[in-house]
Amino acid sequence: MDGALTDRAPADRANDKGILSAVWHAAKDIRIERRVRPALEPGEVRLRVTRCGICGSDMHEFLNGPHAIPVKEPHPISGVVAPLVLGHEFTGEVVEIYGACGAVKVGQRVAVEPEYRCGACAACLQGDYNLCEKMGFAGLMGHGGMAEEAVVPHYMLHILPDAVTDRQAAVLEPAAVALHALRRSGLTAGQSVAVVGAGPIGLLLVQLSAVAGAKRIVVSDVSDARLARARALGATETVNSLSGHLPTQARGVDVAFEAVGVQPALDDAIQSVRKGGKVVLVGLFGAPARVDAFDLVNREVEIIPSCGYRHVYADLIGMIAGGLFDPSLIVTREVPLAEVVASAFERLAAPNDDVKVLVVP
Amino acid sequence: MDGALTDRAPADRANDKGILSAVWHAAKDIRIERRVRPALEPGEVRLRVTRCGICGSDMHEFLNGPHAIPVKEPHPISGVVAPLVLGHEFTGEVVEIYGACGAVKVGQRVAVEPEYRCGACAACLQGDYNLCEKMGFAGLMGHGGMAEEAVVPHYMLHILPDAVTDRQAAVLEPAAVALHALRRSGLTAGQSVAVVGAGPIGLLLVQLSAVAGAKRIVVSDVSDARLARARALGATETVNSLSGHLPTQARGVDVAFEAVGVQPALDDAIQSVRKGGKVVLVGLFGAPARVDAFDLVNREVEIIPSCGYRHVYADLIGMIAGGLFDPSLIVTREVPLAEVVASAFERLAAPNDDVKVLVVP
Repeated sequence: MDGALTDRAPADRANDKGILSAVWHAAKDIRIERRVRPALEPGEVRLRVTRCGICGSDMHEFLNGPHAIPVKEPHPISGVVAPLVLGHEFTGEVVEIYGACGAVKVGQRVAVEPEYRCGACAACLQGDYNLCEKMGFAGLMGHGGMAEEAVVPHYMLHILPDAVTDRQAAVLEPAAVALHALRRSGLTAGQSVAVVGAGPIGLLLVQLSAVAGAKRIVVSDVSDARLARARALGATETVNSLSGHLPTQARGVDVAFEAVGVQPALDDAIQSVRKGGKVVLVGLFGAPARVDAFDLVNREVEIIPSCGYRHVYADLIGMIAGGLFDPSLIVTREVPLAEVVASAFERLAAPNDDVKVLVVP
Repeated sequence: MDGALTDRAPADRANDKGILSAVWHAAKDIRIERRVRPALEPGEVRLRVTRCGICGSDMHEFLNGPHAIPVKEPHPISGVVAPLVLGHEFTGEVVEIYGACGAVKVGQRVAVEPEYRCGACAACLQGDYNLCEKMGFAGLMGHGGMAEEAVVPHYMLHILPDAVTDRQAAVLEPAAVALHALRRSGLTAGQSVAVVGAGPIGLLLVQLSAVAGAKRIVVSDVSDARLARARALGATETVNSLSGHLPTQARGVDVAFEAVGVQPALDDAIQSVRKGGKVVLVGLFGAPARVDAFDLVNREVEIIPSCGYRHVYADLIGMIAGGLFDPSLIVTREVPLAEVVASAFERLAAPNDDVKVLVVP
């Protein structure tokens, strides 16, 4: 199945032997093992998972975690400590519900918006649930969807229309990151954009910037293969940062997205925008960053960080169903759950041209 | 006159011996000298200066300039290179006009908005003239108002109502910096504010935050005298950073203003805001700054730099005339032009409790 793309999910495999799951025990120690099928709490929903994407943060947990995964204290909402079922980019079919679960019904195809929310803090109360004081993601701070089945609170679910495929639904989560960042940028039709980094988020930002009417979309990366994908998805110009200079090519764009999380990418993003331009931070930095605050002040260049997403899933589902864009174009491979360590985690740790790899349980 | 505050300006002193002026020749070399009275170009206005404030940037030019003062190439709009008449915070009476000068007439009292603008670049064309590609200030990049008379383009002038005193008008320029920063922050009534640094801009931000309905205004500085002033002008809480910790006191305010331009002040500002809060940079940094970009992203803390001002003078004049606030409360001394080097520049270079010193030509 490696390398093949299909919307057909295997038949139901959940059985009395337990739920086959990709479980993080420690860095470099992800095990494919059968776990006891948990009972549902009120308001929880059991899904038969049809697709689960692998995210850069999953790779960080694999390579040198724990970063977000709780290993000492249980997460205050999920109550989970490692070992933990990975996977926060997943979609599936409802097989069981318990208690009040809103409009969710058995048999529905649903996408999972995996952000936990307490519903009671100041951020939650004003709708900014991505800034919940107990914020976390199913699949990082609680059990996720890289498994035959997953159990999630019903508020995470979005019912899918037939027009959205499983493969598209599995990419909704990174697409949500991109749409939230795009909205925070304030980009309006006819403006120009720079995207630093053509990974999954960068490529989705290219697609969404095109949907939003960007006049120029200038993309930089160090991989010619990823830049070719960027052009195929709507980039009007590309720059390989190993040989070229994004700010020179960008000539003062209105908005730059930093989608890498390293100093040279931040520098390029800041230098690429015009006076009064905006730099949106989406990349996760592993080290303190330097900025020329005098330059920022003199040019009134705003730094607008973007964290996760809020209130974008329903709009994304509508955009995809309406044919405005297809986020599944960034999917490069699908791998069976049983083979995910060798075929995905270990392979993605070496140089590769993959963009988004999906696990098929 | 040192220490006395008066609205009475001396009688007209402009005469055939030339215009007495404070002229920057080099760092530590400001001379009070008579300069030839220049002829007006079309669209220019001659003012009899009644008051001129001394700004922190004037002090920087005195202590270790040139920073902004052109010493090799003339500024593209003013055409001036040093030696240069200092002073960009000034007000006066129109004594001569030449050519088309809009509504400006001889005898009017006017405040000067000292930003040059080309009127033709992309920023100017969309009204963001503080980001003009040839941006500069009369008094730093062209001759200013620390003199008996000044010549400025008519577009810099705002006609003053009788209800605004000369001393208030002389503080309009730093008040404009503060109001632009406040507007960029998006502060709304009932929110909470931290102000890092209780210099002239910080104190004006305290006043304007109070006018804008801030619920809490928490101010930090290293000077108890300046903190006492902050309380007198509307601060609800103050923290001396030598012994206290602003972020602890602030408890997650909505907006923090960095009005110093040094790393510890930036750190305090960022740590003082809530998730989703905004940090407005007004201070001018002399060195690269460090930020924890991971923290910024996780908390969605926006960094919003503020440069000069645009479209605020008329509103400020109305606010002052209407009694909403009095920016001249930050004025601590007035000094005669002839004594400005010893009584102001040299004295302000040592530790002192002055906030805003005005020169009376």
